Amino acid sequence: MRIARFIHGGSVKYGLVVGDRIYERAVLETALGRSLPDTVLGLIEYLMDYGVRDSIEDAVEKVSTGLRLSDVELRAPVDGRPKIICVGLNYRDHAEEQGVEPPEEPVIFMKPYTAITGPGQPIIYPEITEKLDYEAELAVVIGRRCRKVSPSEALNYVLGYTCFNDVSARDIQFRDGQWVRGKSFDTFAPIGPWIATADQVGNPHNLKIMARVNGEVRQNSSTGNLIFGVDKLVSFISMVMTLEPGDIIATGTPSGVGIFYKPEPKLLNVGDVVEVEIERIGVLANKVAREPQRLPT
Amino acid sequence: MRIARFIHGGSVKYGLVVGDRIYERAVLETALGRSLPDTVLGLIEYLMDYGVRDSIEDAVEKVSTGLRLSDVELRAPVDGRPKIICVGLNYRDHAEEQGVEPPEEPVIFMKPYTAITGPGQPIIYPEITEKLDYEAELAVVIGRRCRKVSPSEALNYVLGYTCFNDVSARDIQFRDGQWVRGKSFDTFAPIGPWIATADQVGNPHNLKIMARVNGEVRQNSSTGNLIFGVDKLVSFISMVMTLEPGDIIATGTPSGVGIFYKPEPKLLNVGDVVEVEIERIGVLANKVAREPQRLPT
Repeated sequence: MRIARFIHGGSVKYGLVVGDRIYERAVLETALGRSLPDTVLGLIEYLMDYGVRDSIEDAVEKVSTGLRLSDVELRAPVDGRPKIICVGLNYRDHAEEQGVEPPEEPVIFMKPYTAITGPGQPIIYPEITEKLDYEAELAVVIGRRCRKVSPSEALNYVLGYTCFNDVSARDIQFRDGQWVRGKSFDTFAPIGPWIATADQVGNPHNLKIMARVNGEVRQNSSTGNLIFGVDKLVSFISMVMTLEPGDIIATGTPSGVGIFYKPEPKLLNVGDVVEVEIERIGVLANKVAREPQRLPT
Repeated sequence: MRIARFIHGGSVKYGLVVGDRIYERAVLETALGRSLPDTVLGLIEYLMDYGVRDSIEDAVEKVSTGLRLSDVELRAPVDGRPKIICVGLNYRDHAEEQGVEPPEEPVIFMKPYTAITGPGQPIIYPEITEKLDYEAELAVVIGRRCRKVSPSEALNYVLGYTCFNDVSARDIQFRDGQWVRGKSFDTFAPIGPWIATADQVGNPHNLKIMARVNGEVRQNSSTGNLIFGVDKLVSFISMVMTLEPGDIIATGTPSGVGIFYKPEPKLLNVGDVVEVEIERIGVLANKVAREPQRLPT
């Protein structure tokens, strides 16, 4: 099952993507014969209780033909104000390209919810950086509140997965030492194109993951190269903080980021289109845009 | 004006503290002759539009005697899921005690909203640390959405101030290098006892700030020692991210934290009571408690 948010008829809605069609909440409600929460956050909680079932997809197709996916504008598939917990240095190949030892424990940092943007929306190139970079990442979407869960229990609290781009202003990131500022600019957390539920993705540790810039492959790895898998990360982070439905864990990026590109760095420029593609999930594409004088509020 | 959240009659309410009385929303509504939002976040937006006026205090006292402050249990004065942006190394005396140069720019990091706890509530000592520490800080509460504001405009977006304790697991903080994990445990962001509005606090750069542990003064400084003042911090952070009503900026801590205490570190132990006191705001007190086997969910 794939859960998306989209603009249609002038407002943001959520729905289910089945093939090349999208079915909005009203259709789901008719198909299920019950009302549903008005936020993805609410839907997530409902699905975790009710169970994610392919029969929902069959049911919606019986009551409606839905909308053509190509006719709607997608948005980030999460709403509310989720926590975004990111993991640094979590691919063997990415640690090697920097010439550092893989860490013994995950290293985490955060991005603010205000950095979230959706598929097809611009990544704004801030005036105060000169080194804008991409990082393709598998993101975990938490489905159920948890605290101090073991790795063996952890996947029970995961609703699904999505693509994530850990956009980074490298000059600021490295100058500060603390990574938060250089990674927290508005639009520095593209998420999407939808949440693919865990049953659809299957084993999260055997997915091809790629970044392309203007069609050129820059990162090309597999989540099989993750140092700490999804089960260990959810457990590790839950030892620190309560995780809640909708919270995002970005699991780290493989080799091939722009700043460490050989023989020369290949950073982002205004006009570039960055795509993050993950097998069994989809493609998250964003174009880099110049910062307006004043951002719209 | 002082805005508080509290438990009364089994539910969490917000209200206005006047002297030793607290007036709940229903009283404010009667006094103002209009209905008010049901969250502090909503109240903040209302107050920023309506203007924070002492006449509100007079009006509530005319319609009710309120509740005795000592009869209610306070909670953290913010609700929703605010961003918590923290500033490192922002007091001249704290930089000196670590033997580091004051930074040329603020260094920021984040805490998750799940770390928020209120006055009188326990700080849970996690099993996986052995070095728990306090940091008394002046926290800024954002009142109005802003992005890229200049220092001279910045204070227009501030609703008020509160006390903040940037509780830190020093072993984890220093081992990780990135500060987020060691500072993000549940209960590591005590906030309170209330939001004192900007008009009540006056100049935020001339306030005595103290931390006491079991009554012993450990930090004793003034916000006059801030390297970057509130106007500069709000502006600086707004250059990175959109700030929204209810968002918290913790402005950094003065000298006297436990880990750098001379001649010996003086870290926190289970049973200790930590108080953060800031002039013209109040006292935020929390007791350190052992971690239960399973946290209540």
